[in-house]
Amino acid sequence: MKQVEIHILKEKLFNFLMQYFDEKAVQDCVDVILYAELCNKTGQGLLKLLGTEPLQGIKPEKSVEIFERTKLSALISGNKNPSFHIAQTAMRLCIDKAKEYGFGIVGANGIFSSTGALGFYAEKAAQEGLIAYACARSPGATAPFGLSAPLFGTNPFSWAFPTLEEPVVFDMATSAITFYELVLAKMAGKKIPEDVAIDREGEITTDPSEAMKGGILPFDKGYKGSALSMMVETLSGPLVGASYCDYETFDKDWGFLVFAFDPELLIDAQKFRKEADNLVTIIRQNGGVVPGDNSRQYEKAARHSGNITVEKSAAELLGL
Amino acid sequence: MKQVEIHILKEKLFNFLMQYFDEKAVQDCVDVILYAELCNKTGQGLLKLLGTEPLQGIKPEKSVEIFERTKLSALISGNKNPSFHIAQTAMRLCIDKAKEYGFGIVGANGIFSSTGALGFYAEKAAQEGLIAYACARSPGATAPFGLSAPLFGTNPFSWAFPTLEEPVVFDMATSAITFYELVLAKMAGKKIPEDVAIDREGEITTDPSEAMKGGILPFDKGYKGSALSMMVETLSGPLVGASYCDYETFDKDWGFLVFAFDPELLIDAQKFRKEADNLVTIIRQNGGVVPGDNSRQYEKAARHSGNITVEKSAAELLGL
Repeated sequence: MKQVEIHILKEKLFNFLMQYFDEKAVQDCVDVILYAELCNKTGQGLLKLLGTEPLQGIKPEKSVEIFERTKLSALISGNKNPSFHIAQTAMRLCIDKAKEYGFGIVGANGIFSSTGALGFYAEKAAQEGLIAYACARSPGATAPFGLSAPLFGTNPFSWAFPTLEEPVVFDMATSAITFYELVLAKMAGKKIPEDVAIDREGEITTDPSEAMKGGILPFDKGYKGSALSMMVETLSGPLVGASYCDYETFDKDWGFLVFAFDPELLIDAQKFRKEADNLVTIIRQNGGVVPGDNSRQYEKAARHSGNITVEKSAAELLGL
Repeated sequence: MKQVEIHILKEKLFNFLMQYFDEKAVQDCVDVILYAELCNKTGQGLLKLLGTEPLQGIKPEKSVEIFERTKLSALISGNKNPSFHIAQTAMRLCIDKAKEYGFGIVGANGIFSSTGALGFYAEKAAQEGLIAYACARSPGATAPFGLSAPLFGTNPFSWAFPTLEEPVVFDMATSAITFYELVLAKMAGKKIPEDVAIDREGEITTDPSEAMKGGILPFDKGYKGSALSMMVETLSGPLVGASYCDYETFDKDWGFLVFAFDPELLIDAQKFRKEADNLVTIIRQNGGVVPGDNSRQYEKAARHSGNITVEKSAAELLGL
């Protein structure tokens, strides 16, 4: 691990990506990657530049294309542009629509790498006073409940809503572990925990290679988590023209969906914020942690110190 | 248990409820209760007529009032009408809006009993070609992750989407067991399972009375399930002007929200259905059960036989 100043990391990251993509796309990538690193979601940050299929290894075919289907909606062809740029384009358009018409929904296909920490996108919408949901499908890695084939991706989703102060942001994978944890264990020759994956015969396995054939379990190891994963597979697969259940073809067209609506559709928006704020205050008063709090604390501490710790291979790649 | 003909149960149920409510409301109640019984969701059916706070014990203050806030949305004052009538009113309006404008969202407050099996409402929308989400808050029963106070309800939600044949319908409580299971164990002097609830000190308990003070655990016993419960608490609490975190006041204004959108917003609707159908076909071909399949099989078998088994005290109440 290497400690670096945040502004230097930002600059180096920007310059590194400018070798591959245009400035607008690079700025979008830097935003999301830095967010993940500052929030300590390190599996969603600089790691996306490493491994056998790094972000910068994908060559855009042409610019992102927006097909505005209705006032409320659009479908985006990502055309192999960097995932973070495609998802940010979708999110910005969704926010514009929801602010103007009360509701917006934007999907994207033609994405060939992870869109990262989904909380980033939902939080942006919540910062504009909207209630938002984002989800993203990834290549087959998770076994639906009762099956032993990785039909679904690790399929994360996020919900966020505004309060009087900072938004509540909730972000989760629907799988028991991430695909990255599986890859990491395999590379390191290590075992995975005893209750997170099965082999092709449906038996619990601690061997990451076997787990890639059978599948990671749903996060709750049950039918509810499996159904939630299926909803993400559907909302960011068939609904947006991306792949789905691609564990054999490994099509890798990941799919992304975001929708947002104005609380004003139902109730005075300020009243909503006040009551939502009271709800989170009750949780905190009872000693609870509100979704998003932990990430924000990491971010504040990092920004206060001005420094951030970067994984060694990422530091080398960026010339830090 | 008593076996009765379905059409007789329907008639007796209708006549019983007509003693308390007007015909339109009664019809809505009969629909949802019968659906739950036929689908073997027996905790969501006739049981709502039993216990210390039965559906028929609530006296409507005045008719359901619809406040049409925008073309896309409405907020409903339930005014203590029967829960199923309020929720069906919301659902019908939501479907009309989504079919006309692509998206509809309708919330309701002034509900003083359970809205039952949420899959009923989402499925109705999916039968009209829409993708739908429904959720309902209930009085405090579930402890957020890491806490030992029942801040959240058991907070069920449902997702449904159309395919080429029958819709996929997914319906779950966000708690490890339902509140009804807790009440039933208490009444019978029985223990609850060893890993589903905690007492006021945060220790695992098998005593249902202690569990009512501490709380049922989230369905996954973790922070993800807790956050999903919190989203339901927010979407069908503050957002619809209902209560929330009412474990001390027990306000019992339950709250209900449904939203639906047309897949056509993003992609050719027939293409969506075809791909969604292929997705569920892949799951079935791999030996998996698609959400909604089990319920539908129960319903078909019951309708085929023409008979249904009814719990003894419910049969007595209805004069069966």
